Amino acid sequence: MEIPEQQWAQVIETPRRGVVYKQIPVQQPGPDEVLVNIKYSGVCHTDLHALTGDWPLEEKSPLVGGHEGAGIVVAKGDQVTRVGVGDHVGVKWLNGSCLACEFCCQSDEPLCPEALLSGYTVDGTFQQYCVAKAAHVSILPKEVPLDAIAPILCAGITVYKGLKESGARPGQIVAIVGAGGGLGCLAQQYAKAMGLRVIAIDGGDEKKEMCLKLGAETYIDFLRSENIVHDVQGATTDGLGPHAVLLVAASEAPFQQAASYVRPRGSIVMIGMPAHAYLKASIFNTVVRMVSIKGSYVGNRQDGNEAIDFFMRGLIQAPFKVVPLSELGKVYELMGQGKIAGRYVVKIPD
Amino acid sequence: MEIPEQQWAQVIETPRRGVVYKQIPVQQPGPDEVLVNIKYSGVCHTDLHALTGDWPLEEKSPLVGGHEGAGIVVAKGDQVTRVGVGDHVGVKWLNGSCLACEFCCQSDEPLCPEALLSGYTVDGTFQQYCVAKAAHVSILPKEVPLDAIAPILCAGITVYKGLKESGARPGQIVAIVGAGGGLGCLAQQYAKAMGLRVIAIDGGDEKKEMCLKLGAETYIDFLRSENIVHDVQGATTDGLGPHAVLLVAASEAPFQQAASYVRPRGSIVMIGMPAHAYLKASIFNTVVRMVSIKGSYVGNRQDGNEAIDFFMRGLIQAPFKVVPLSELGKVYELMGQGKIAGRYVVKIPD
Amino acid sequence: MEIPEQQWAQVIETPRRGVVYKQIPVQQPGPDEVLVNIKYSGVCHTDLHALTGDWPLEEKSPLVGGHEGAGIVVAKGDQVTRVGVGDHVGVKWLNGSCLACEFCCQSDEPLCPEALLSGYTVDGTFQQYCVAKAAHVSILPKEVPLDAIAPILCAGITVYKGLKESGARPGQIVAIVGAGGGLGCLAQQYAKAMGLRVIAIDGGDEKKEMCLKLGAETYIDFLRSENIVHDVQGATTDGLGPHAVLLVAASEAPFQQAASYVRPRGSIVMIGMPAHAYLKASIFNTVVRMVSIKGSYVGNRQDGNEAIDFFMRGLIQAPFKVVPLSELGKVYELMGQGKIAGRYVVKIPD
Amino acid sequence: MEIPEQQWAQVIETPRRGVVYKQIPVQQPGPDEVLVNIKYSGVCHTDLHALTGDWPLEEKSPLVGGHEGAGIVVAKGDQVTRVGVGDHVGVKWLNGSCLACEFCCQSDEPLCPEALLSGYTVDGTFQQYCVAKAAHVSILPKEVPLDAIAPILCAGITVYKGLKESGARPGQIVAIVGAGGGLGCLAQQYAKAMGLRVIAIDGGDEKKEMCLKLGAETYIDFLRSENIVHDVQGATTDGLGPHAVLLVAASEAPFQQAASYVRPRGSIVMIGMPAHAYLKASIFNTVVRMVSIKGSYVGNRQDGNEAIDFFMRGLIQAPFKVVPLSELGKVYELMGQGKIAGRYVVKIPD
Repeated sequence: MEIPEQQWAQVIETPRRGVVYKQIPVQQPGPDEVLVNIKYSGVCHTDLHALTGDWPLEEKSPLVGGHEGAGIVVAKGDQVTRVGVGDHVGVKWLNGSCLACEFCCQSDEPLCPEALLSGYTVDGTFQQYCVAKAAHVSILPKEVPLDAIAPILCAGITVYKGLKESGARPGQIVAIVGAGGGLGCLAQQYAKAMGLRVIAIDGGDEKKEMCLKLGAETYIDFLRSENIVHDVQGATTDGLGPHAVLLVAASEAPFQQAASYVRPRGSIVMIGMPAHAYLKASIFNTVVRMVSIKGSYVGNRQDGNEAIDFFMRGLIQAPFKVVPLSELGKVYELMGQGKIAGRYVVKIPD
Repeated sequence: MEIPEQQWAQVIETPRRGVVYKQIPVQQPGPDEVLVNIKYSGVCHTDLHALTGDWPLEEKSPLVGGHEGAGIVVAKGDQVTRVGVGDHVGVKWLNGSCLACEFCCQSDEPLCPEALLSGYTVDGTFQQYCVAKAAHVSILPKEVPLDAIAPILCAGITVYKGLKESGARPGQIVAIVGAGGGLGCLAQQYAKAMGLRVIAIDGGDEKKEMCLKLGAETYIDFLRSENIVHDVQGATTDGLGPHAVLLVAASEAPFQQAASYVRPRGSIVMIGMPAHAYLKASIFNTVVRMVSIKGSYVGNRQDGNEAIDFFMRGLIQAPFKVVPLSELGKVYELMGQGKIAGRYVVKIPD
Repeated sequence: MEIPEQQWAQVIETPRRGVVYKQIPVQQPGPDEVLVNIKYSGVCHTDLHALTGDWPLEEKSPLVGGHEGAGIVVAKGDQVTRVGVGDHVGVKWLNGSCLACEFCCQSDEPLCPEALLSGYTVDGTFQQYCVAKAAHVSILPKEVPLDAIAPILCAGITVYKGLKESGARPGQIVAIVGAGGGLGCLAQQYAKAMGLRVIAIDGGDEKKEMCLKLGAETYIDFLRSENIVHDVQGATTDGLGPHAVLLVAASEAPFQQAASYVRPRGSIVMIGMPAHAYLKASIFNTVVRMVSIKGSYVGNRQDGNEAIDFFMRGLIQAPFKVVPLSELGKVYELMGQGKIAGRYVVKIPD
Repeated sequence: MEIPEQQWAQVIETPRRGVVYKQIPVQQPGPDEVLVNIKYSGVCHTDLHALTGDWPLEEKSPLVGGHEGAGIVVAKGDQVTRVGVGDHVGVKWLNGSCLACEFCCQSDEPLCPEALLSGYTVDGTFQQYCVAKAAHVSILPKEVPLDAIAPILCAGITVYKGLKESGARPGQIVAIVGAGGGLGCLAQQYAKAMGLRVIAIDGGDEKKEMCLKLGAETYIDFLRSENIVHDVQGATTDGLGPHAVLLVAASEAPFQQAASYVRPRGSIVMIGMPAHAYLKASIFNTVVRMVSIKGSYVGNRQDGNEAIDFFMRGLIQAPFKVVPLSELGKVYELMGQGKIAGRYVVKIPD
């Protein structure tokens, strides 16, 4: 297979000024890297943060965004033995890490101080050919459809990781706040596949229908509830509340309520990261009820492999719409307006 | 031994009106209870909350306070086989629990919805004869001095529990905020006995001297520090901050700083409960650094036995002053003024 | 409801001499006990051990066996508030424990040195009226059928506990050795409900059909396999073997093989207890592969409640046959001959 | 610094035929490797197994043994950024691993199927210049003496790992079988530094004296004990036995006894690997007492860094004797005769 010298890409040339669809040079992989011909890439809320620059984390400029890329290895460095040309792989948020620091040594490579972040500190998957560290790409069986797997590579892994971090055991109850959104839909399915029982919290009848279809045992409409704490606790047989709460909402308010309705000894896992938002909880209630509040970032490589395995086994159906890479700008617009249900996937031109 | 019908006690007759030293009737133990002739009782900050009624938790009235009582069993109910008359025991905050609910079944008896709280929902240890559930008293070897052990029965157990909850492993570093106070002094010693390394945070040179003597490796004076986050992280070899933070301070401000200086993947354990206080933390930083914030209440019975065992082995020296029960009111006054260093223990009249 | 003075029971009058169906007096509950009118009782392999006396554990004599009893509370002691007359409850192997020793304090009440064992050290459920400690009976919702729940009360809880002890996480693979037996059938269903994937190991085509129907992904016939280690490892995608092995077989041989085919870092959970049997494993292989071998006894009270909850939610179908209590002797005969598939439940006369 | 083309080494030219002290070529480091000028190397029992070939694990031939090497980096590959020329590092049993397989991704790099083993599958530290993967060398602060640290690099890390795997918590009791040997001496000190209490088990008065000096609370002489189970359990206050047992003995017998004296719910950690030895335990007792038996191999990189940190803090004193590399053959002889107390360290010629 011939690798061209130029390729199509969506580029953030100047921060906060939108994306430009243009031709740029193809990079060469280093000795421990692979070059991946991206076929499809999911569009994540984080990509929007990269575009608007409202996170307190410096990014590369100019920048090719994207970190949910599925494609085919077309070249590799001398040191790479793990994957070969022709293998199908996924490129994720964590493009690479040092593999030897305290965090990498404890399977927390997302916390590596030298982590490379796809579509943020290094160029990502909104281009035809993307470079990634060989030790970090996810190997995908060839029978997996590259469009459907794309949203799993960030959204799927992240909610799966959050569910693991919650410590909830099979048979226990987890409340998912923002259950009808892109992350929430996936979280519900992972939860069910893990033997957990789901209380879905979101707003509106359309989302109600979808949540109940995805396997939630109860739906609580925060737009109609007069007392969320009462309603969430009432949805558990003994009235003590869910064992865990997964916060995937994009707004701040639900973060403050969770500490009141979670079961004593329960855990609250924060995943969504509304810009400039704060968690606030009564110290007295948190202490005497022994509640844990945890931040959960993206999964590590093992979490990734596990989340993909659940997908491979047919347990996860992520609804998605495909549009050409050239239309990425419109996807950002819809996302900024909060008009996206499910996930957008861009098709990278051949 | 003859048990009198009347006894001396310190009674909160009307909430928020102080204590009255007077004679009241001695209670009889129920079938699963013991009657304990209290010899010494520690005075805890919680007793002050019971007096001032500033916690959102209803209390008995009139009330005999106190929940760090050490004494001798003088009578017991028919069902009691675990302890006998003449045994030395400790009466703790958790006077009794149902022993069969979801929380009791999982060793979290402090979370039992039917928990009886000494000196709060049932009469406590500021009297000569106190009733307690036999399954809940701590059995004390007869060689242990009943005055010195008293502060261990609440303060000691509580900080020991908090250190366990932190998940910090031997060799790791824990920052103790409020290290020079009553809880903090004990926490430093327990931490050291558990193989942990201590960064002590408090204010003033007197506390500095005490902390370094108790085994802290570093002392950080928050009154002098120009940048607490920088200083705490700088006190760890790799600059990444302590693996855990134990919050035993009585004010709200340190709760907000801890999330910034704790090591990524570290845990913050809240123990102190300033009235009306809130925890506030940046969601973004908590998520991307995967920080856990946990409330830790009093220990369960096993925690109690373990904390007492550390004391028995000579590893914990809790500084305390003894005054007669009749002077309890003055102790409350000093406590309200923040003038107590170490722990006060009241001697119960024979 | 009137409680008679005499009742029907199956009594082991002299060890190893079989059961006698006769009338015996009804006992009175103590202050912390309930009297349960048993409606149905499962028959467990342990009952056979009690009959033949081949376990190194002393039993009561004469003895009423049985420890999977479901019935209705008809009387209770003064101290009992947890359950009331008319409540449906289950009486399990663990009839009572001290609730205050080191093991009870850590939720390991089955390890309590003063544990009372139904149908072994105290009279059990093969009688119309059985006494049990109120803190230990399992509360059953009234809609649950008392015959179908009976086998859950020991067999179900025990395999559920074993699966928890294995440490296997949702999505991981567990091999169940003896998958087609009474315990094995339940274990497969619990494993599936917990999000685990099952490799069923047993002998014969009849069992194959049953196992695949119960949800096993693979069936391995040890009667036909020429290389069990090779076949079990080959049943996992990467060939590294199952993450956990559950040993519920009644013979010794499978205990020796498991250490060879379990995945490195995997765990082997021993549940079945063939009389006079020994575990034997190569030290070299166990060390360099970091394998864990664990004994798992019956569940604690919380495990019991959880296992019952899975049943209540319709996820567990335990096949059973009902015969009258008077025919218990015949059940023992069949069991001794290894002729029982599924579980026998005896109907206690009204 | 100039790197010669030839160097001195001890070479096993033909398996089972002893070592030859001779000159061999110096290897060049690959892109992700470093070349280490070894200054000192400990001699481990595993080296003897490499010499005698009595382990069921294939080794390189001809072979330079040794895997407790401390030295200075003199060259490095292009890809290496973690360490620089002049840095002090340790070369351990685990010379390298793939850093991307299921085991590496979960911090179990010693279980990596592609692991390179120093002095076994690749040339080790009994030579002047040794090659090692940069991601795997332990970075040593320059103030640490390179002779004293050598035995920590395998023996120290291995026992520290075993203590972590035991699950024993500070304040609990661990019995160390073979406490007076090279591993045992280190294990006692690590245990103490981790807040554990030690029962030392070994034979003879000389070892008794040493163990009590190293901090053991009790010494049990298996040569004199008439009932090891009774004596070990009797050495715990409540007579229930130690919470964990660490088996570092080189013979098989102690492996069979541990299951009888360990506390119910306790764990037995196997570290020593006598050739051709088997673990044997009663299934009944292992199940009803819920005992865990675990194999613990060498530590991962994080365990290594932690074990070194304990040493750096002055908490571990490993007694050792230094002899020149040329005398390695004599050390093997003494080791084969079981005549070594403490650890031998060979000085590599400058």
